[in-house]
Amino acid sequence: MAVRVPEIDYYSLHGIWGAYGSLVLGRIGRGAGVVVGDVRPPRGGMFVGYRVGRDEPRLLPFSAGVKFGLGASAYREDEVDSSRADSQGGAAYFGPDEIERRVSLSGEEWKAGALSFRVVSFFGEVPDPQAVTPASARSALRPSLLLRLAFDNSGGKGPMTGLFGMQGIRRPLSDSTAGGLLGMAADTSFGFAIRPKAGVEEVMDWSVIEAAFDGGADGSSRPLRRLASEGGLRFTIPAGEKAEYVVALGVYRDGIVTTGLPAHAYHTCLFKDVEDVLESALEDAPESLFRAERVDAILDSSGLSEDRQFLLAHAAHSYAASTELLLAESGESVFVVNEGEYQMMNTLDLTVDQAFWEARFSPWTLRNELESFAERSSYQDGLGIAFAHDQGVDDCFSPVGSSAYEMPGLTDCFSFMSYEETLNWVLSSCVYASLAGDLAWAKGRRVTLAACLRSLRARDANGDGVMDRDSDRCDGGSEITTYDSLDISLGQARNNLYLAVKAWSAFVCLEALFSRMDASPSPESAAAAESARAAARTIAGRMLPEGYIPAVFESDNRSCIIPAIEGLAYPGFCGAPAAVREDGPYGELIKALKRHLGTVLKSGVCLDASSGGWKLSSTSKNTWLSKIFLNQYVAERVLGIEDERTRRDAVHARWLRSGSADYAATDQVDSSTGKDLGSRLYPRLVTSILWLRKD
Amino acid sequence: MAVRVPEIDYYSLHGIWGAYGSLVLGRIGRGAGVVVGDVRPPRGGMFVGYRVGRDEPRLLPFSAGVKFGLGASAYREDEVDSSRADSQGGAAYFGPDEIERRVSLSGEEWKAGALSFRVVSFFGEVPDPQAVTPASARSALRPSLLLRLAFDNSGGKGPMTGLFGMQGIRRPLSDSTAGGLLGMAADTSFGFAIRPKAGVEEVMDWSVIEAAFDGGADGSSRPLRRLASEGGLRFTIPAGEKAEYVVALGVYRDGIVTTGLPAHAYHTCLFKDVEDVLESALEDAPESLFRAERVDAILDSSGLSEDRQFLLAHAAHSYAASTELLLAESGESVFVVNEGEYQMMNTLDLTVDQAFWEARFSPWTLRNELESFAERSSYQDGLGIAFAHDQGVDDCFSPVGSSAYEMPGLTDCFSFMSYEETLNWVLSSCVYASLAGDLAWAKGRRVTLAACLRSLRARDANGDGVMDRDSDRCDGGSEITTYDSLDISLGQARNNLYLAVKAWSAFVCLEALFSRMDASPSPESAAAAESARAAARTIAGRMLPEGYIPAVFESDNRSCIIPAIEGLAYPGFCGAPAAVREDGPYGELIKALKRHLGTVLKSGVCLDASSGGWKLSSTSKNTWLSKIFLNQYVAERVLGIEDERTRRDAVHARWLRSGSADYAATDQVDSSTGKDLGSRLYPRLVTSILWLRKD
Repeated sequence: MAVRVPEIDYYSLHGIWGAYGSLVLGRIGRGAGVVVGDVRPPRGGMFVGYRVGRDEPRLLPFSAGVKFGLGASAYREDEVDSSRADSQGGAAYFGPDEIERRVSLSGEEWKAGALSFRVVSFFGEVPDPQAVTPASARSALRPSLLLRLAFDNSGGKGPMTGLFGMQGIRRPLSDSTAGGLLGMAADTSFGFAIRPKAGVEEVMDWSVIEAAFDGGADGSSRPLRRLASEGGLRFTIPAGEKAEYVVALGVYRDGIVTTGLPAHAYHTCLFKDVEDVLESALEDAPESLFRAERVDAILDSSGLSEDRQFLLAHAAHSYAASTELLLAESGESVFVVNEGEYQMMNTLDLTVDQAFWEARFSPWTLRNELESFAERSSYQDGLGIAFAHDQGVDDCFSPVGSSAYEMPGLTDCFSFMSYEETLNWVLSSCVYASLAGDLAWAKGRRVTLAACLRSLRARDANGDGVMDRDSDRCDGGSEITTYDSLDISLGQARNNLYLAVKAWSAFVCLEALFSRMDASPSPESAAAAESARAAARTIAGRMLPEGYIPAVFESDNRSCIIPAIEGLAYPGFCGAPAAVREDGPYGELIKALKRHLGTVLKSGVCLDASSGGWKLSSTSKNTWLSKIFLNQYVAERVLGIEDERTRRDAVHARWLRSGSADYAATDQVDSSTGKDLGSRLYPRLVTSILWLRKD
Repeated sequence: MAVRVPEIDYYSLHGIWGAYGSLVLGRIGRGAGVVVGDVRPPRGGMFVGYRVGRDEPRLLPFSAGVKFGLGASAYREDEVDSSRADSQGGAAYFGPDEIERRVSLSGEEWKAGALSFRVVSFFGEVPDPQAVTPASARSALRPSLLLRLAFDNSGGKGPMTGLFGMQGIRRPLSDSTAGGLLGMAADTSFGFAIRPKAGVEEVMDWSVIEAAFDGGADGSSRPLRRLASEGGLRFTIPAGEKAEYVVALGVYRDGIVTTGLPAHAYHTCLFKDVEDVLESALEDAPESLFRAERVDAILDSSGLSEDRQFLLAHAAHSYAASTELLLAESGESVFVVNEGEYQMMNTLDLTVDQAFWEARFSPWTLRNELESFAERSSYQDGLGIAFAHDQGVDDCFSPVGSSAYEMPGLTDCFSFMSYEETLNWVLSSCVYASLAGDLAWAKGRRVTLAACLRSLRARDANGDGVMDRDSDRCDGGSEITTYDSLDISLGQARNNLYLAVKAWSAFVCLEALFSRMDASPSPESAAAAESARAAARTIAGRMLPEGYIPAVFESDNRSCIIPAIEGLAYPGFCGAPAAVREDGPYGELIKALKRHLGTVLKSGVCLDASSGGWKLSSTSKNTWLSKIFLNQYVAERVLGIEDERTRRDAVHARWLRSGSADYAATDQVDSSTGKDLGSRLYPRLVTSILWLRKD
């Protein structure tokens, strides 16, 4: 069922949808545990293992932890305790060869020796909490995941002791639940628990490994060491038996968590505290596990290669880690996808790429983002409406009409993206209206959509369909694209091939949308068509004798870029499938772009000469996985190029599990080595959902 | 006025009363800034300095910071930015010889070049918020301090640019206050601000030093770099002028912050957010500065040596850092003093030492702690009522009747302190009733006080006034004292000299209290007197021919300890001053203890042979400053021994400013070097308030 991964030493970020919290694990010997309000892997230890009788305890190879809090000797000796680092309490880690790591859409599983440890973190569709009953909302938006520990002592002569524990723990949950739960929590922000049953105990000690395993086989237990900061659950499995335990892990963020637009975490209106979350998660565990099975069936029945299954699952887990559902003081929900390590909020050039994912699993979040941008994060420059790059950073919403990212007077990174973000809002709106079937929403936003069309056309001074005027917000600088860390081939907005095709696509989709919204032909529909035709002509006319279109229509630029075709992704979803057919109204453009792709998709050009992986630009070593996936979809499903040139997934999967193993998932990598170059811990790789499209 | 300190390279912890938050600064080149919910110095940079024209910028020597968040290059280069560490943006630090550091009870001041930087963190008495008007409560319990920056450009030819900034900042306060404040904040938890005025601007950039000083002299400014995590205020001082700015710094802890006894920070019911705190602090700044002057006058008029003034001020600031006022769900306030680096809550053997301080500045907090212990943290063992060591750790309240610290089956550190904590509750109650003049409270607690007396007497099997029975909670182990990290001379409870004198004192104080409470002689008063007499006899009878009393009345122990006299501190405050007079009813005991002190207060015994500082036990190098101060008071003011043997304050002050410079303040130090051995960042050193007693 789940995909067994050949390289097991890489991080996974098991995001808890909407909670801006994750369980992070996977790098051998490196920190593992829970992060809340962040996505960076923690430094603490996590302990999953067992001991048979008096044999040596065996543990999965997560870190035994750095010095975390004070050790016992800080209270009685003259030196701060430093012994804890790398101490493992006499336990032996399983080696990589002894471990089987399997990834599925709902989570992952580690098997080693007599142990199986499964993380179930993704449960599929998330309904709009304001459109369902509170009971359904509690179930769907509960900030929790499940852990399944299975111990096999069927061949054992004596009892087996199992352990699940962590560092950074300060309190036993039996305290606050009058014994209703057994488990451990870190302050009010996260915890894990199980219902009381025979053979399960809380352990808390300076070394939870020692506390769990020393004297464990005879059933004795140590009193809880409440000053310590390691805790866990200890399981006793009688000889000759197997046992399976489902542990809930939950997070909770109390109080106002954002500024600029002050808001609570949405789950605070559904749950009282982390104990409430855990109680509910355990009660619903059978239903959640059933939902996880259905989620896994999506991949199992997809026909995708194992590499693509891995890439999609890995992307899904990291995407969830950056999601944050808020409850504003107005009572409205505000959905945010944070931008991985950069922590920008709802970066609009990510939103457009994540739109396909959200349209599948939570279309209302896409609408929520679009509304929020229209109301809060759009502005008027000298050419019309435009949209900000993002809505803030690190839980600080930027002032209305501004982003955290954009600055005046620049020509590269951190400059304005007025044109591209306006395209992104338009394309995301078209995708939402079509895939969610919500034409009523588009009609309600007709004025904004028409303003966007006017604004986009105003940025094309010569009427050739291609942007050639920078926003005055640049204040002497010039606009850039989402590819802000690449060279000029993808970075400059003006006269840029990638952006020209994306603009063509937006005009095509707008024409279709206005046609569907309006009973009779409208000026907007006609204007959009006019710009689409102009853009198509301009782009196709830029074909060079060598068989490709240069990346920038200026300064004799000769870079070859794959994302020339990126814009072709949208018309098929937005009511204009004919537009991307070679025999359709824009056949010349489509044929030109197909020829372009055929020319550039060669080793040493846009296939990395060393690794064989996709290289977005022939002149930059920096390649972006989210965009590779999106362009793979276009190449294969729109342009019909599907062969060994497009099936480079083994390379791409290896990049994430080796070169960028320290971060889950990394978007920007070195195309020869897969080493992370930026955009770490990123949500955007869910463009891979496009591989699942059946149309 | 304030004391100029000879060693300037040490940390101060400028606690914000009741907020469990501090401004930490002072170690040269080491992290400085704000901590909330903790007392450990932060790793971030703090920037206080100026530039005259195009001269080299000059900064106070706080750290320029470690890598804090992402740098600019993380967004566009292939490597994570590492250049920030130790970068100072082309600025030059003032050297130690150029700096004057002065400490006062209200705060401290740094002067260097044309700059003066003053921290005003302590404002004196704190009223019970539930006994005053909301307006008074807002003023008295506002979680804020003030910073005064003075720049002297009177001799300057061109404009001077001043800077106050920090790392870890994510948002300009002008955003959320519509320009009502200029300043910077880190999420919702802390910020600093000033009212808008000419020549003051917000700066926010990858390097706030560069942003403030580059091009600063011509008045130009950079747009705010909202992705950065450094921010500050930039001041422009025209040529020929001086300028002074008062900046407010505030903290805010939203949501439920504790578990076990779930509670909010008390300030959340008085203030909406950190902006509200800062607005209020700036509005009240003149009044606050006036209160600070009155506070400083306490020390200025004290007649104390400069060393003692420093020790007292340093203690006061660190004590405040550990204070935390909570609002329980019941609507009642719950006061907690956290235990420095150990983070235990209301450790009762600290409460008794801090009682003198609280009786002076916030008697209601002492009552609050006593009530909380009686209701929540007392228990019944086989011998009667006893009190837990503490009420929890790290904002996690322990279950009713238990502490985070105590464990069964032990004979040293982490064992039970049932007897000593019961003494501590009794003595603290007597101190409170007398010094706060609240006999009504004691009458309301008469049953508990009587139960304590019975319990204490029950722990003395042979009726000699000295504890000889361990609590059954020890489960085979044996009780210890607050001196848990010292050797047996002070560590074992049973037959311990220190504890015997403290018990004698408790019996004396109880006799006095019962006599005052009751119209006619009571059985309790008589019983207390009986035990006091027995204890006095026993202790005095243990005098050795060498002229001292051994630390433990067992196993031929021959340790010499200073805290033999510690218990003599209380009767004078608790209505029994005659009890500590050589010509009083316990004259023999007093004379014996005076002889004892004279014997042990010698170099190589209880004066460290190398440093000359006080050494609590002849057999341990670990000495505790809080207890030194308390015993100095007894030696000088109760026993009348006040000469070069008791005036070792220069040594003790140097310990804190050199050996333990990394922590403010450290209680447990090596008596030869002053190196910190434990109890770092500690609140307990406010026993030094006793030096101020006029009686």
